[in-house]
Amino acid sequence: MTTTPESPPSTPSGADQRRNEIVASAARLFDEFGYGNTSMQQIAIAAQMAKPTLYHYFSAKDAILFQVHEEFIDILIRQFRGRALRSTGLRDRLVGAMTDILTLMDTHRGHVRVFFEHHRELPAEQQRLIRAKRDEYEAMLVGVLEDGRARGELILDQPRLTALGIFGMCNWAYQWYSRDGALAPAEIAERFGSVVLDGLSPRGD
Amino acid sequence: MTTTPESPPSTPSGADQRRNEIVASAARLFDEFGYGNTSMQQIAIAAQMAKPTLYHYFSAKDAILFQVHEEFIDILIRQFRGRALRSTGLRDRLVGAMTDILTLMDTHRGHVRVFFEHHRELPAEQQRLIRAKRDEYEAMLVGVLEDGRARGELILDQPRLTALGIFGMCNWAYQWYSRDGALAPAEIAERFGSVVLDGLSPRGD
Repeated sequence: MTTTPESPPSTPSGADQRRNEIVASAARLFDEFGYGNTSMQQIAIAAQMAKPTLYHYFSAKDAILFQVHEEFIDILIRQFRGRALRSTGLRDRLVGAMTDILTLMDTHRGHVRVFFEHHRELPAEQQRLIRAKRDEYEAMLVGVLEDGRARGELILDQPRLTALGIFGMCNWAYQWYSRDGALAPAEIAERFGSVVLDGLSPRGD
Repeated sequence: MTTTPESPPSTPSGADQRRNEIVASAARLFDEFGYGNTSMQQIAIAAQMAKPTLYHYFSAKDAILFQVHEEFIDILIRQFRGRALRSTGLRDRLVGAMTDILTLMDTHRGHVRVFFEHHRELPAEQQRLIRAKRDEYEAMLVGVLEDGRARGELILDQPRLTALGIFGMCNWAYQWYSRDGALAPAEIAERFGSVVLDGLSPRGD
């Protein structure tokens, strides 16, 4: 590994690619069999490498679990920030965040259940790191809701509770979302966004 | 046990009480340590009985898991039906169902995670039975939404997707609800119901 700071690689290095493959394979196994029921041996087989090679990349199973968690939340934070830079529209930012989450059900299926159901199995320090990032992400959505309220675009008295409701609508899709369903993630987000912003009761205006 | 059919007991029998205690103890252990990590021995200790006594009530751990699932969904179905008999108001029925679910986070904390995260560990036939009840419950909420649409009280184009969004808002609370929180389950349901029915955008009317 001789990457100079002056010329960072624009594509992942071979080692990074291998790590990504390991994490993707492990996430699928954790999702299907549960974290506790998956061994490093099984991960090595799924990632098509010898066990010592696997240990070269990850010293323990919980290091992979952490990587699954971090990848998941980092994607959401990055996309939320990117949208904040590109756009100021409230609906766009809200529906955009909902689309991001629902899209992960499609692109990171293995990660999703692990992130939602196995965070308690992370070592304490790593649990703390992931919780800080979850809180940061939550605070970003709360901030969008508060901004909307301040500008008179939204009426709400409990921004955090409202954010938890919005996350719930989307996160819960990990229990029912199917790639074979009639609607794509962005279409589901559009409809959920409309429920949250417009409500189901007819509007007089 | 000499209960005659003519005079059914109005309170649970001693045996029923013991079964309830076992299920409550087991649900707490499954919630805290995971279903796979909990043994019949641990359940017997938590329920303060000898292991043979436990086996007198439940022949296997998955029989307890099934009982946890059935109790959880039966409560929701019973309450939904009871409200349908008492009231015809749409908001009342919708917010009532949301209150039912959120209240279980408080009263049946141990059951909740088990119901949401361990259903795949039920034996196939029991998984089918529980899934049928879940589908029945879902269909009841979809029916309320469709009725509301037919009467012009609601505007929506995807009743099932909308129901899944509403369930998501409430079910997801198992990840964040705390008894020490500022709002009681009925208050949270009232606010979530308002988001869903009224929307967050200001209304002209």
